[in-house]
Amino acid sequence: MKPITMTSATNFWADLPSGSDGEEVFEEILKSGNVRIERISSSSGQISPENFWYDQPENEWVILLQGEAIIGFTDGVETRLKNGDYLFLPAHQKHRVLYSSKEPPCIWLAVFWET
Amino acid sequence: MKPITMTSATNFWADLPSGSDGEEVFEEILKSGNVRIERISSSSGQISPENFWYDQPENEWVILLQGEAIIGFTDGVETRLKNGDYLFLPAHQKHRVLYSSKEPPCIWLAVFWET
Repeated sequence: MKPITMTSATNFWADLPSGSDGEEVFEEILKSGNVRIERISSSSGQISPENFWYDQPENEWVILLQGEAIIGFTDGVETRLKNGDYLFLPAHQKHRVLYSSKEPPCIWLAVFWET
Repeated sequence: MKPITMTSATNFWADLPSGSDGEEVFEEILKSGNVRIERISSSSGQISPENFWYDQPENEWVILLQGEAIIGFTDGVETRLKNGDYLFLPAHQKHRVLYSSKEPPCIWLAVFWET
């Protein structure tokens, strides 16, 4: 009879950054082919600087797994996100973080891919 | 002054299937380019049938966001997953579900892509 080896998977919630430096922390979980998966943490209520827009060459699908946030778009739309809310941000759809909660910190799971 | 429109994002936890039919439910969240994102729910403690192996042409990255499960591999390794645990399953890495919890039901977020 074949022996069975029990293993544990990697956990998304392990080793969260302390965020004491006040920066958003981008951690690569996986990169394979044209796909990259990241954990993004902001623990100090970070928002995007005035007049700053994310303008990315990759498509992004992002889900907020902890915290609350507001994402702003160039047409004036503001999208409020709470735990479990997700957004698809096609490449070059400009957006910025208008609000991110501090308690609890925002933890995002993001998938990026070029097409 | 430009008016501000507040919108809500789609929520991952909304409208979970009742699962009363005893099947795993695969729901497409997004398909764009070579990437597909799905929510997978199993609410009846489903396991893969005897001698059945998932053998997929796409790479898969999957995270268990609720419940507990055990995934088995052809080399006899069994990987136990709890909330937040994730696995990368390269294309054609055969695997099967050996256990999935009923209380709470297993809810997975899966990203599939061809390379």
